[in-house]
Amino acid sequence: MVDIANRVWNRQWKIDPIVRSLIDTDFYKLLMCQSVFRNRRDTQVTFSLINRSKSVRLAELVDEGELREQLDHIRSLSLTRGESTWLRGNTFYGKRQMFRPDFMEWFEQLRLPPYHLEKRDGQYELTFEGSWPEVMLWEIPALAVLMELRGRAVLGRMGKFELQVLYARAMTRLWEKIETLRGVEGLKIADFGTRRRHSYLWQDWCVQAMMEGLGDSFTGTSNCLIAMRRDIEAIGTNAHELPMVYAALAEDDAALARAPYQVLADWHEEHDGNLRIILPDTYGTKGFLDNAPEWLEGWTGIRIDSGDPATGAENAIAWWESRGEDPRDKLVIFSDGLDEQKIIDLHRQFSGRVRVSFGWGTLLTNDFRGLVKDDQLAPFSLVCKAVRADGRPTVKLSDNPNKAMGPADEIARYKRVFGVGDQTRQDVVV
Amino acid sequence: MVDIANRVWNRQWKIDPIVRSLIDTDFYKLLMCQSVFRNRRDTQVTFSLINRSKSVRLAELVDEGELREQLDHIRSLSLTRGESTWLRGNTFYGKRQMFRPDFMEWFEQLRLPPYHLEKRDGQYELTFEGSWPEVMLWEIPALAVLMELRGRAVLGRMGKFELQVLYARAMTRLWEKIETLRGVEGLKIADFGTRRRHSYLWQDWCVQAMMEGLGDSFTGTSNCLIAMRRDIEAIGTNAHELPMVYAALAEDDAALARAPYQVLADWHEEHDGNLRIILPDTYGTKGFLDNAPEWLEGWTGIRIDSGDPATGAENAIAWWESRGEDPRDKLVIFSDGLDEQKIIDLHRQFSGRVRVSFGWGTLLTNDFRGLVKDDQLAPFSLVCKAVRADGRPTVKLSDNPNKAMGPADEIARYKRVFGVGDQTRQDVVV
Repeated sequence: MVDIANRVWNRQWKIDPIVRSLIDTDFYKLLMCQSVFRNRRDTQVTFSLINRSKSVRLAELVDEGELREQLDHIRSLSLTRGESTWLRGNTFYGKRQMFRPDFMEWFEQLRLPPYHLEKRDGQYELTFEGSWPEVMLWEIPALAVLMELRGRAVLGRMGKFELQVLYARAMTRLWEKIETLRGVEGLKIADFGTRRRHSYLWQDWCVQAMMEGLGDSFTGTSNCLIAMRRDIEAIGTNAHELPMVYAALAEDDAALARAPYQVLADWHEEHDGNLRIILPDTYGTKGFLDNAPEWLEGWTGIRIDSGDPATGAENAIAWWESRGEDPRDKLVIFSDGLDEQKIIDLHRQFSGRVRVSFGWGTLLTNDFRGLVKDDQLAPFSLVCKAVRADGRPTVKLSDNPNKAMGPADEIARYKRVFGVGDQTRQDVVV
Repeated sequence: MVDIANRVWNRQWKIDPIVRSLIDTDFYKLLMCQSVFRNRRDTQVTFSLINRSKSVRLAELVDEGELREQLDHIRSLSLTRGESTWLRGNTFYGKRQMFRPDFMEWFEQLRLPPYHLEKRDGQYELTFEGSWPEVMLWEIPALAVLMELRGRAVLGRMGKFELQVLYARAMTRLWEKIETLRGVEGLKIADFGTRRRHSYLWQDWCVQAMMEGLGDSFTGTSNCLIAMRRDIEAIGTNAHELPMVYAALAEDDAALARAPYQVLADWHEEHDGNLRIILPDTYGTKGFLDNAPEWLEGWTGIRIDSGDPATGAENAIAWWESRGEDPRDKLVIFSDGLDEQKIIDLHRQFSGRVRVSFGWGTLLTNDFRGLVKDDQLAPFSLVCKAVRADGRPTVKLSDNPNKAMGPADEIARYKRVFGVGDQTRQDVVV
């Protein structure tokens, strides 16, 4: 067990790398990367950092030199022998050799491509350009570096015991959440908190606390490095970047309308079981389900990542029923803005009607709200998204207009093509 | 900085010594020991463990074999070269060579004398017999061992992260007390918490937190080992055992009435300044002050260790005024059952009228109240007292009849000799 406060105190900020491994990333990134490597290897994409919390002026908080050092360090990383062995030899979702030899050979040779960084209006413009399977692997480490550098700027001004008490308070808070969750029969929760974690050490602590505190109710972590080191399950399926890039590449409206299903058709070919999880909200859940092909009915579950989660789950259940499927055999994964009370409420509402699982993110691995002056360690809404693919802009609508992104005219076109009507706005906290 | 939870978790309970140094004791023990070594070296005394909290059934909680191992280990300790150097070379209360060469030579040769241990009614009867300067040094390590073994019995059943959160909660609680105290102008507080500390590591953490959090308002610690290692002041003066043994040795009532003053006459010869602190309550503060000889008026201060502390301080002020002394030149040290609010209240009430200082004990170094099930880590009232001297029973009255000890007929005799009337009972928490 690491004394985090002590490590933070002793840290030589300027030289201590934040991301030390290419697999210190979300498992689904690697699953998607393999899919992209097979199906769209030559697609040229641009990923860009987007800080939805404008009040957090990152370029004033985080030193540019330190940020460059961290990003340069990530570019020096390559897969270690032990990491490669783990990816090649481990069983993921009950399946051996999840990662194919040709992908592993490519991954073993990989170094992350260059980045472009400049300051504008108190924010960093950080972009990554190149082939999709390479650029996509920047997302998680870029977010983790920014989140942690912002934290370090605050922590660096604190005393040794002040730091220890800060972590004591954060630990106590998480433990109280765990104690609240412990009593709930049949709960299944995984850590999805890599991208907006307070720090690597803190995420690692959170995972271990979940292991001890929740036992079998804790199903694993999305973080491959932690999964490897703690010998637990790596958890993840797929994300919005797949339909966003596929859609951007569509030549016309008809191809655009087919794009989200093409993603899952490609996915269908390589995965079964718990990896067949539909993420239906990229361009509106309702239209997606209404127009879904028959073969999607047989998929294992649906992940609800925007909009009102209870409504999303009800819609999923109604869809399965309308297609003659028994929802009790199906899995609903909630992964948007969860905290312990929302988890319990959703579990109570849907347990027994569907199989329910939770991907708990930011408020698991970064709940430092209210713990320092002016709430300077509160999590904020930072994302790193595909914004262009082969020269065309990407679009995301989701089930919450506050999460929409892309050029206005393209958003209008997508709404028309996907038949998205009025949506309810929901605050995006994290 | 030590990760206490981790150390607790990794600890090999059965072999890990609790007390590892003869100076892991209160500074005033060594001051008194030197006085006794000079004046009453051959007095034969019996010290005995007394658990005033009968509901804490120590003999059922603490394994006898482990207790014997710990006590045997303490008997194997001798002063190390570095400890001896520190005692001989350090400046205490601004004075060099506080400890005389003949005392240091004796102390360097010392091993603690045998103990006698048996179980009775769910409690341990633990007694020490021999010459006063040797036996008296058992008090603090014996208490520390019992307190910590009782804690270990509870901690040993806890999980790794449960332990870390336990300490996180205790740290947060102490830090909040420190934050409350930090705003109070002119506060002077020392750690007096060795005897009933949760553990050595925890006391050491508390001291360091006080150093960082209170700055100059933290004046030092009574624990010599921590004072040496943290390079801070060792704090302490004298305790009840001196008048208790002197009184027991008195041949008649007249000698008994003189005994408490004889203690201070002996003390007067070797100490000045902040070490001339009167502890007036052994046989009732009022009678002691009324009958005090003139030379005591010039002493620096009074320590209030029983009864209502505000009343005790008012009586001290009134006494100084009645003897023509200016109370603003005098020091009142509060040391009984303090917690942060009581400290603040007393400071507000007396600051400016006298110089005020606090010896914060159990609720500084052992406030684990309410942190585990059934409050099994709450501090309790364990003492180790001189009960016989040269074959005669000792008596303590104090300003609280709940703290009185000794045979009933002797208590009656002492009350008569010292003119002690009705007293107000006060709960003894710690």
